[in-house]
Amino acid sequence: MNRNEKSPFCFREVYQDQRSFLELEVSRWVYSRETSFQKIDIFDTVSHGRVLALDGIVQTMERWEFMYHEMIAHVPLQICERPKHVLVIGGGDGGTIREALKHPSVESAVLCEIDRDVVEAAKTYLPTLSHALSDPRVSCVFEDGVAYLKGSSQTWDAILIDSTDPTAGEGGHLFTDAFYALCRERLVPGGVCVAQTENPIYDREWMQTAYRRIAAAFPTAGIYLGFSPQYPSGFWTYSIGYRSQDGQNKPDFYQLSPEAVRRIPPHLRYYTSDIHSAAFQIPPFLSDYLA
Amino acid sequence: MNRNEKSPFCFREVYQDQRSFLELEVSRWVYSRETSFQKIDIFDTVSHGRVLALDGIVQTMERWEFMYHEMIAHVPLQICERPKHVLVIGGGDGGTIREALKHPSVESAVLCEIDRDVVEAAKTYLPTLSHALSDPRVSCVFEDGVAYLKGSSQTWDAILIDSTDPTAGEGGHLFTDAFYALCRERLVPGGVCVAQTENPIYDREWMQTAYRRIAAAFPTAGIYLGFSPQYPSGFWTYSIGYRSQDGQNKPDFYQLSPEAVRRIPPHLRYYTSDIHSAAFQIPPFLSDYLA
Repeated sequence: MNRNEKSPFCFREVYQDQRSFLELEVSRWVYSRETSFQKIDIFDTVSHGRVLALDGIVQTMERWEFMYHEMIAHVPLQICERPKHVLVIGGGDGGTIREALKHPSVESAVLCEIDRDVVEAAKTYLPTLSHALSDPRVSCVFEDGVAYLKGSSQTWDAILIDSTDPTAGEGGHLFTDAFYALCRERLVPGGVCVAQTENPIYDREWMQTAYRRIAAAFPTAGIYLGFSPQYPSGFWTYSIGYRSQDGQNKPDFYQLSPEAVRRIPPHLRYYTSDIHSAAFQIPPFLSDYLA
Repeated sequence: MNRNEKSPFCFREVYQDQRSFLELEVSRWVYSRETSFQKIDIFDTVSHGRVLALDGIVQTMERWEFMYHEMIAHVPLQICERPKHVLVIGGGDGGTIREALKHPSVESAVLCEIDRDVVEAAKTYLPTLSHALSDPRVSCVFEDGVAYLKGSSQTWDAILIDSTDPTAGEGGHLFTDAFYALCRERLVPGGVCVAQTENPIYDREWMQTAYRRIAAAFPTAGIYLGFSPQYPSGFWTYSIGYRSQDGQNKPDFYQLSPEAVRRIPPHLRYYTSDIHSAAFQIPPFLSDYLA
């Protein structure tokens, strides 16, 4: 390799254990800004495409983000019966909203992101994710997710909690008992709530805590898994809660109905009905962690 | 944190793209040796337990190795009908043999590892993996896998190729057409061969090449997936080939028979019959890579 092909700059992420680190060679710095909430960095890499980091933690690698965004959106939205109104909390890059809008039943989607600068930066520098934010069905609210839910009585078919890590930036209060209870109150009967709940390798305690709190807030709850190479260990968990309705059958998270399978949006790259079922298969060591 | 708790030493792995890096804080150096084949390093970490690296590439993290070793051993051994004779090529740490021996039908297991020093180091410093090597059913052969198969006419119910990366150390010639064809010849009819075939994030071309070569050598072949946080991206692929027998039904890799499910060894931490089926669900982007 020609020595000039190598960039002298590296981005360094400190994993949650404080003793393991990911370094990525930066081919081009794109954007950096200190906002009132966090430090935003956007840079290009040869292997992962454009990368968004908040407070030094990778949020999005453009080449691999589809795995995470498809799994946080399509699993709950396929479990819902024809979701109409979807709330995304966090997710300022627009990737989760982009996936939600692939469901033709969705009439409105609100992005509630505390940091307007993240959305503005994504609109300018991450168009493959943020293009969905200009869809006429989308509104953006720049407010803390807890305050937004408290201040509005609107109910939702699905609430997707696409937060940063509980230990970094502004994500921590999106992992509380009170927040999950509030999410449940703001769901219609038959509605679902999903949250990214970290990984069992570097952040086992937060994963346990978040899953247990969701399972306490929702009588019907579960956890599912997906590969997410953009995040530490690549072993990602998502916890899901269902607001039941009197006299209504609880959904089988694992198995989609034939009608639901027919509603899967076309052209997805990670999610299929078989991946949906596979994602709910939990290895015994993980069940032990969550018991 | 007390500053004295932090070690000033880091291990640094250069991922296959040469532009992404993993660093692990080393709490204690345990062993280092330059052999005729490669550099062996063993060190302790707080988050991952004891780590074995060959030529600077992590082979084993004691805390997470069970995921990889259970998946490379139990998927093929459950597909076999009561395997008696198992050959492991590579895998000098003993983890794959350890899992194979959990099948009571196994009467003999040969470990064919080119580098005797890896086995000796594992025996001394990685007893939770290597203890299986002192089982009376096990023999160790310190020879190149290709030479060993060429020089012996013995046939096997299962051949498990637990090699290093094709681009590092001595693993490269274990990824050739000729080697896979030789493995097929040395299987009994109804026997299976499995190889670790890298990941689609950092090593997509080798994954494609290895899978396609195995699919060319074996009329019945498949690929399956497992989380393996000890390796780059955590998204691990295993390719499997089956030697069919005239008049015999081909196995359904995906679905185990009820008798096979009853034969699953107890006390596994990752593998279950449901994980077995889930592992064969392949996201569309990966099917596209392999087409």
